[in-house]
Amino acid sequence: MNFNLEQFASDNNSGICPEALEYMMKANQGSAPAYGNDEWTSLAADYFRDLFEIDCEVFFVFNGTAANSLSLAALCQSYHSVICHENAHIETDECGAPEFASNGSKLLLAKGENGKLTPEAIEAIVNKRADIHYPKPKVISLTQSTELGTLYSIDELVAIKSVAQKYNLKIHMDGARFANAVVAMNKSPAEITWKSGVDVLCFCGTKNGMALGEAIIFFNKALAEDFAYRCKQAGQLASKMRFISAPWLGLLETGAWFKNARHANQCAEYLENQLLKIEGVEMMFPREANAVFVKLPEQVITSLREKNWQFYTFIGVGGVRFMCSWNTTQARIDELVSDIKEAICAPRSS
Amino acid sequence: MNFNLEQFASDNNSGICPEALEYMMKANQGSAPAYGNDEWTSLAADYFRDLFEIDCEVFFVFNGTAANSLSLAALCQSYHSVICHENAHIETDECGAPEFASNGSKLLLAKGENGKLTPEAIEAIVNKRADIHYPKPKVISLTQSTELGTLYSIDELVAIKSVAQKYNLKIHMDGARFANAVVAMNKSPAEITWKSGVDVLCFCGTKNGMALGEAIIFFNKALAEDFAYRCKQAGQLASKMRFISAPWLGLLETGAWFKNARHANQCAEYLENQLLKIEGVEMMFPREANAVFVKLPEQVITSLREKNWQFYTFIGVGGVRFMCSWNTTQARIDELVSDIKEAICAPRSS
Amino acid sequence: MNFNLEQFASDNNSGICPEALEYMMKANQGSAPAYGNDEWTSLAADYFRDLFEIDCEVFFVFNGTAANSLSLAALCQSYHSVICHENAHIETDECGAPEFASNGSKLLLAKGENGKLTPEAIEAIVNKRADIHYPKPKVISLTQSTELGTLYSIDELVAIKSVAQKYNLKIHMDGARFANAVVAMNKSPAEITWKSGVDVLCFCGTKNGMALGEAIIFFNKALAEDFAYRCKQAGQLASKMRFISAPWLGLLETGAWFKNARHANQCAEYLENQLLKIEGVEMMFPREANAVFVKLPEQVITSLREKNWQFYTFIGVGGVRFMCSWNTTQARIDELVSDIKEAICAPRSS
Amino acid sequence: MNFNLEQFASDNNSGICPEALEYMMKANQGSAPAYGNDEWTSLAADYFRDLFEIDCEVFFVFNGTAANSLSLAALCQSYHSVICHENAHIETDECGAPEFASNGSKLLLAKGENGKLTPEAIEAIVNKRADIHYPKPKVISLTQSTELGTLYSIDELVAIKSVAQKYNLKIHMDGARFANAVVAMNKSPAEITWKSGVDVLCFCGTKNGMALGEAIIFFNKALAEDFAYRCKQAGQLASKMRFISAPWLGLLETGAWFKNARHANQCAEYLENQLLKIEGVEMMFPREANAVFVKLPEQVITSLREKNWQFYTFIGVGGVRFMCSWNTTQARIDELVSDIKEAICAPRSS
Repeated sequence: MNFNLEQFASDNNSGICPEALEYMMKANQGSAPAYGNDEWTSLAADYFRDLFEIDCEVFFVFNGTAANSLSLAALCQSYHSVICHENAHIETDECGAPEFASNGSKLLLAKGENGKLTPEAIEAIVNKRADIHYPKPKVISLTQSTELGTLYSIDELVAIKSVAQKYNLKIHMDGARFANAVVAMNKSPAEITWKSGVDVLCFCGTKNGMALGEAIIFFNKALAEDFAYRCKQAGQLASKMRFISAPWLGLLETGAWFKNARHANQCAEYLENQLLKIEGVEMMFPREANAVFVKLPEQVITSLREKNWQFYTFIGVGGVRFMCSWNTTQARIDELVSDIKEAICAPRSS
Repeated sequence: MNFNLEQFASDNNSGICPEALEYMMKANQGSAPAYGNDEWTSLAADYFRDLFEIDCEVFFVFNGTAANSLSLAALCQSYHSVICHENAHIETDECGAPEFASNGSKLLLAKGENGKLTPEAIEAIVNKRADIHYPKPKVISLTQSTELGTLYSIDELVAIKSVAQKYNLKIHMDGARFANAVVAMNKSPAEITWKSGVDVLCFCGTKNGMALGEAIIFFNKALAEDFAYRCKQAGQLASKMRFISAPWLGLLETGAWFKNARHANQCAEYLENQLLKIEGVEMMFPREANAVFVKLPEQVITSLREKNWQFYTFIGVGGVRFMCSWNTTQARIDELVSDIKEAICAPRSS
Repeated sequence: MNFNLEQFASDNNSGICPEALEYMMKANQGSAPAYGNDEWTSLAADYFRDLFEIDCEVFFVFNGTAANSLSLAALCQSYHSVICHENAHIETDECGAPEFASNGSKLLLAKGENGKLTPEAIEAIVNKRADIHYPKPKVISLTQSTELGTLYSIDELVAIKSVAQKYNLKIHMDGARFANAVVAMNKSPAEITWKSGVDVLCFCGTKNGMALGEAIIFFNKALAEDFAYRCKQAGQLASKMRFISAPWLGLLETGAWFKNARHANQCAEYLENQLLKIEGVEMMFPREANAVFVKLPEQVITSLREKNWQFYTFIGVGGVRFMCSWNTTQARIDELVSDIKEAICAPRSS
Repeated sequence: MNFNLEQFASDNNSGICPEALEYMMKANQGSAPAYGNDEWTSLAADYFRDLFEIDCEVFFVFNGTAANSLSLAALCQSYHSVICHENAHIETDECGAPEFASNGSKLLLAKGENGKLTPEAIEAIVNKRADIHYPKPKVISLTQSTELGTLYSIDELVAIKSVAQKYNLKIHMDGARFANAVVAMNKSPAEITWKSGVDVLCFCGTKNGMALGEAIIFFNKALAEDFAYRCKQAGQLASKMRFISAPWLGLLETGAWFKNARHANQCAEYLENQLLKIEGVEMMFPREANAVFVKLPEQVITSLREKNWQFYTFIGVGGVRFMCSWNTTQARIDELVSDIKEAICAPRSS
């Protein structure tokens, strides 16, 4: 099959980008101390400190589920709770990882347009219960860009920060597509994180072009106390750490982290524009980063599947998600759009 | 500094071997389904089934701590216990990972010569307590080759299997250096695992030449029920799984897994032989795989450190461990031996 | 204050009934073996086997939260999930105990009229997800009588059993007010439990007239394997167990368990009837056991509070719950009804 | 059988003392708010504050295993460790409860004469490892009086406090027989706890004469943050709390806590004196509180068992433990001593 052609299912279907690969090769010279005591790891951590313009604590783990669940566990005890959007990845796609890592913390779900929490929704949850028979809210978890491809504006972040301060809540940011958010917002990484109240960020390298690897960045350094032990105990300390940290350095030093995200965003924008030209096609959410959510008739979806296109559908909504990546090509977008057009125009089978 | 010269601290200080790298590059073509639904992953799993001559269940996780702790958690509940040697990695170097993954299972430590459990020691632990005020033994964990570089013979394994059956205990094998054991014992992988009673094996790829990645192999398939969920929840499901499974396939298909281990074992043998020629040098344990444990005077250890040699010492024992790897060279061994000789002959400072 | 007059907040505000007390006194003669190795404990366990007409496994723990969370933990692993009603006590009032005891199992919430799960709702949840990124459903938890004071009929139980069998789900029953259900349904304990598919029942003694103490009854004995260890590890093994088991025997042998529940149900029925005579008063849910849920104007609620009546209100619904108990008196019900009448007729303050 | 005669197996084989019972009866008047919001609970907590001469935080839980494991969990995270004596109850008799409650904290065992930790032993453990591959020591757990019936003197406590401060360790005290220690040491409760560096004390009511119930007393109030949630989540919040707190108040107000302990200690002293008069009988440890450990020939132990005496033996040591309680009588001690004498003089069967 042709599967290895570029697809639109997820940015984690893409391979390793050249810059990440190049640094991995560079790191593969001779021996190096294990468990992060190598030079690549300290260089990469320092680079993050520069990038975020703050003396933060940086940890590298294997994947996003681990990054989210371990950092949340650092922010709350088992009898605390985490407020998140009902579409948050930590709720819908991590198989109870946050509950496991924290030994029982509950996720309290809020609704909110375009996949975003609002100060009102957060406050309503906090105030719903104040007795010991229900887990005490301790953390707000935001995803930037969101699972629905939208963005929290600086104003929205600051408003949430204000609620967080009022109720003594910490802010966790799931940055599965953080690079795409930085590009799209035209703000500095510092502005949309710690300057907006974020205590800890999980910055995803995998979707940004690495083979694997996430950076957990504690802007609030007190929360990182003994966190290295937590990573080790949870099976998240790589022995040959350099093969995670060097590719990170590759992304950062060469600017590929930004370039890859910009490319993905631009591809999504292009795809959106092409789709909007087709009559009857309707966007489901504002396209703000690298994901395009679009309503398509069932027959079109079936037709695309038959042509081996890979993408996610959203149950009961009649919509699909097309995710663009660092390696998405205009040619493949054009093919996809063409196949959609063709399917839309085709007479329905009885 | 010259750190990137080959060292003797650990086989996880070595880089990626050519065959693993080659397959990683091959896998980096275009897109592939995420989370192990790619071809590389199914090919690698099948290859393990062939290698072990049995229809086993195969899972890939990131590192050895995760492999050990998750597989142990699959074998026992929180109120059960795991019998292991007091030098077992799960006890001494995983920061409580087994206790964490299982939500509290206790490790019951046995002494035993050369880092090995004996049937008698196991039986003594099982019979020490039989009341509900102490965790009930459920698993025996063996390391093959052991943390002290020795091997369980087939006879020893079979004797332990017999105790396991008597007390209804499962057998877990930490195969951090399993390839080295296969090479050293001149037995098939099947013979020293499931044919000798092993229920689950954690086969380490990292120390064998990969960037990272372990295979958890359940010979007892019933124990693998829903294990994929466990991996996912624990943050051990790689999204771009192909970059773990393809290198595994590389090691297996090319025979590099065996070649690398044989090379490391031979290097250790060579090193041992050279050391034994030096008067006053004494081995601490039988050298059976790729580790050499040797007693050295304090002044020699200091001298080696000053020359930037990397290795582990064993507290209070006056000994050091030299670990050989797929990339160890005879030249570096010779340099090391030469430096040891020189230090031994040097007049002690007052 | 007059608080020690009988109240309507909860049946756990009542004290110890005479029969439970009598047996506690009887058990307080001289010494007895600890940890359940006494005669009272074995007699009480045997009595449960008679009562339920089956050779079940019986364990005594301290409270309902422990009984529910430990028995659920016995039915599922951390990566599994429990389907329950959104009003289930395990969800709303146990502070994440099930998630803690199971090390992360998620509760999947269903809506359903009158506090009851339906086969359709269960099936919809089971079928919503079938991938490893979401916890796998393993248990259905029912409360009998429900948190809204209603009952699952035999037909409803059997229909749910059928779904359970179809999807290989276990059935847990929270019997916080199980005695009240037995009385109200006029069925044998066996009929509404294991004959209707229930695998494990948490039978509450506290609300039925004891000082404290729950019986966990495994009809499916295989699920009780090593459960005594689980109780011990979770801090739920009483050393002076006789003071839990003897009162249980008191309730059972004297028939007080039934008499107490019948009295509470009859009080609730009487209260309901009196309330229905008041114009404008409306029941919220069918009154089937010992709880009466009624809509009352805000001013009435305030007036009752001022008169020191104790009861729960339901946020945003404008309703209150009056719970009857083994020690509720008709005189106090009459006083309550009289105060409600008076408050309803009173002119509202501006 | 005569089992209900007073025995020497454990102080938890005794029943409820009159004062505890009297207050339980008093509390059983009418209704009372649940979950500790009753008057008895606040009076008992206040009484503890008076007794300890400090504004401490007081929580009531069901048993000692829960008290120890939950308070330890409040003092450390899963990747931390607790230093305790190898004979500590938390290690030998709680079925992994501390590991479970803390989600994996390891107990690090020290040897020490007479069941006591020494500053040197603690320091040796702390300094053994300082890397992230092993759980970081965070707590010292002491038992007062110890499992071997001995006492930490004020000087010993202060010396341990000094080590604790040096390494930033918290001090937990298992007070299973705390009352016996207070009596034996002739010191105030304050002197042997917070004034000697103890952060949290688990004060056992069960062994002191209650049906059940422990008080967890945080002298270091910061460590008690949100602890009520922890108790609730772990199934340790009694709904009819008054039946735990009122008996506590009974023990405290009437002085029975002291009287009971004094009686038990005196009985043990009397028993010791009687035993020492028998030729060939040897004490195993200094008799300092209410336990007598004595070496007895195997034939004597067998003979006592045949006469239905209840006591614990210590595996492989040839010794037995006789534990005295609030309800031990001189008559029964005399009977026991007489039976021992008789057995010692009897000719051994061939």
